[in-house]
Amino acid sequence: MKLLRVGQPGAERPAALDDEGRLRDLSGVVLDIDGTFLSGSGPHRVAAALAGGDLPVLDPEGLRIGPPLRPGKIVCIGLNYRDHAAESDLPVPAEPVVFMKAADTVIGPYDQVLVPRGSTKTDWEVELAVVIGHTARYLESHADALACVGGYAVSHDVSEREFQLERGGQWDKGKSCETFNPLGPWLVTADEVPDPQALGLRLWVNGEARQNGSAKDMIFGVAEIVRYLSQFMVLYPGDLINTGTPAGVALGQPEPKPYLRAGDVVELEVDGLGRQRQEIGAA
Amino acid sequence: MKLLRVGQPGAERPAALDDEGRLRDLSGVVLDIDGTFLSGSGPHRVAAALAGGDLPVLDPEGLRIGPPLRPGKIVCIGLNYRDHAAESDLPVPAEPVVFMKAADTVIGPYDQVLVPRGSTKTDWEVELAVVIGHTARYLESHADALACVGGYAVSHDVSEREFQLERGGQWDKGKSCETFNPLGPWLVTADEVPDPQALGLRLWVNGEARQNGSAKDMIFGVAEIVRYLSQFMVLYPGDLINTGTPAGVALGQPEPKPYLRAGDVVELEVDGLGRQRQEIGAA
Repeated sequence: MKLLRVGQPGAERPAALDDEGRLRDLSGVVLDIDGTFLSGSGPHRVAAALAGGDLPVLDPEGLRIGPPLRPGKIVCIGLNYRDHAAESDLPVPAEPVVFMKAADTVIGPYDQVLVPRGSTKTDWEVELAVVIGHTARYLESHADALACVGGYAVSHDVSEREFQLERGGQWDKGKSCETFNPLGPWLVTADEVPDPQALGLRLWVNGEARQNGSAKDMIFGVAEIVRYLSQFMVLYPGDLINTGTPAGVALGQPEPKPYLRAGDVVELEVDGLGRQRQEIGAA
Repeated sequence: MKLLRVGQPGAERPAALDDEGRLRDLSGVVLDIDGTFLSGSGPHRVAAALAGGDLPVLDPEGLRIGPPLRPGKIVCIGLNYRDHAAESDLPVPAEPVVFMKAADTVIGPYDQVLVPRGSTKTDWEVELAVVIGHTARYLESHADALACVGGYAVSHDVSEREFQLERGGQWDKGKSCETFNPLGPWLVTADEVPDPQALGLRLWVNGEARQNGSAKDMIFGVAEIVRYLSQFMVLYPGDLINTGTPAGVALGQPEPKPYLRAGDVVELEVDGLGRQRQEIGAA
């Protein structure tokens, strides 16, 4: 299933794409797309309602697509593609690099991303996001880990490199600026993604291709990431994992690095998970 | 006001301590102690209800004290006391070191803290927590910053030093283990804390004094922390800031360092904000 949340920010209602690509209103079936939905009977009820064929059709004209869920927490994996570690001039990690991003940075896939005040190094990162469907705690196997995955989505892990790398301390400082995590358009349930490592990821800035990678080049794959993280923290239904970005970010380009500026347009997609488009504004 | 949440985990109800130290039930006055409460008319309504004197008295016998709020996000300031930076063998930071902690680590002040599986370096950190009452975004002055503070609480920023410092990457890996943020007992509203920098902080392990510091020795004070953070992220009502710990953590002791083990008892307090006590268990 392709699950969405549509409507104005903070007032989104749940929806799904049906087999013909029509938008179906789920607000009579489920309260919201969230951890409670994913860990309970929600997906089954939605599947049954979609099969029944009598969910109201929504007119997409003028309808905002919000993020497909409001995550509980966002955990990010850094330097998880060899080519991106190389372009960042950082060693390939021996075990996953973990950082966190404020969940309140999540916006819809077509919402405006704001360059922070004082920023000159706002950068893009297309990522495969994992949405947790069932509580993950001290998992022992990759099979157990994949069983905790509720679905996948396109995630844009926008990053401010000066804040992240040059202002002292930890990366988090450059990761949680307002609007820094466009998510969606869809939450695609895990049953429709038999092999997350087979997915291609691409990103364009002002129409120019910048990133073109494959999840097969992850250093730590989705199952290992979920298993590993569950040794250090509990992952709850509705939590989100940004699994890292392939090469091609502005940080990795020759000088002058083409960091994002107001007026730029970023488009990004992951195979089967949909496509985002953001106009860049200024905070 | 001293605000609390009492009852079983996930089913806490709001309460307050009255001038005679009796526990008063607020569940007829407000839904919960959270960001919505703090940013709206909640504090005024509670003050009026307390003044009215006819709120039901709760029997504290056998009643669990939960965390005084479920924070939106937790932002932490690292190495914010000179003596703690020195004992950690790390330079005094030129600007605040920022990291994040999963909000789902928050437990009540008397709940059990669990040493993670495989951990040999679980450490204590008594901290002054700032609770945001009004949205903080690109603040210009310390006065504006203090106006965004809704209150203060005792926070225990439990930390696993091997996970934090020796497992690659960012500190976050050792900060978000299950049960790693006891909070409370009270959220003391900002009007009752005229000078947060005047507060003393103390911590004992098995009755032995380990930390004894003062917020006057912070490198970056509360007003500067809030102002500074608001340049990098939006702070929303209900967000929590752990403002750093003074010297005396296990990491800073001579070998063999006295890291926490199951069966230990940690007690900690901040002047005017109450006292916590945790028995240490094993995950």
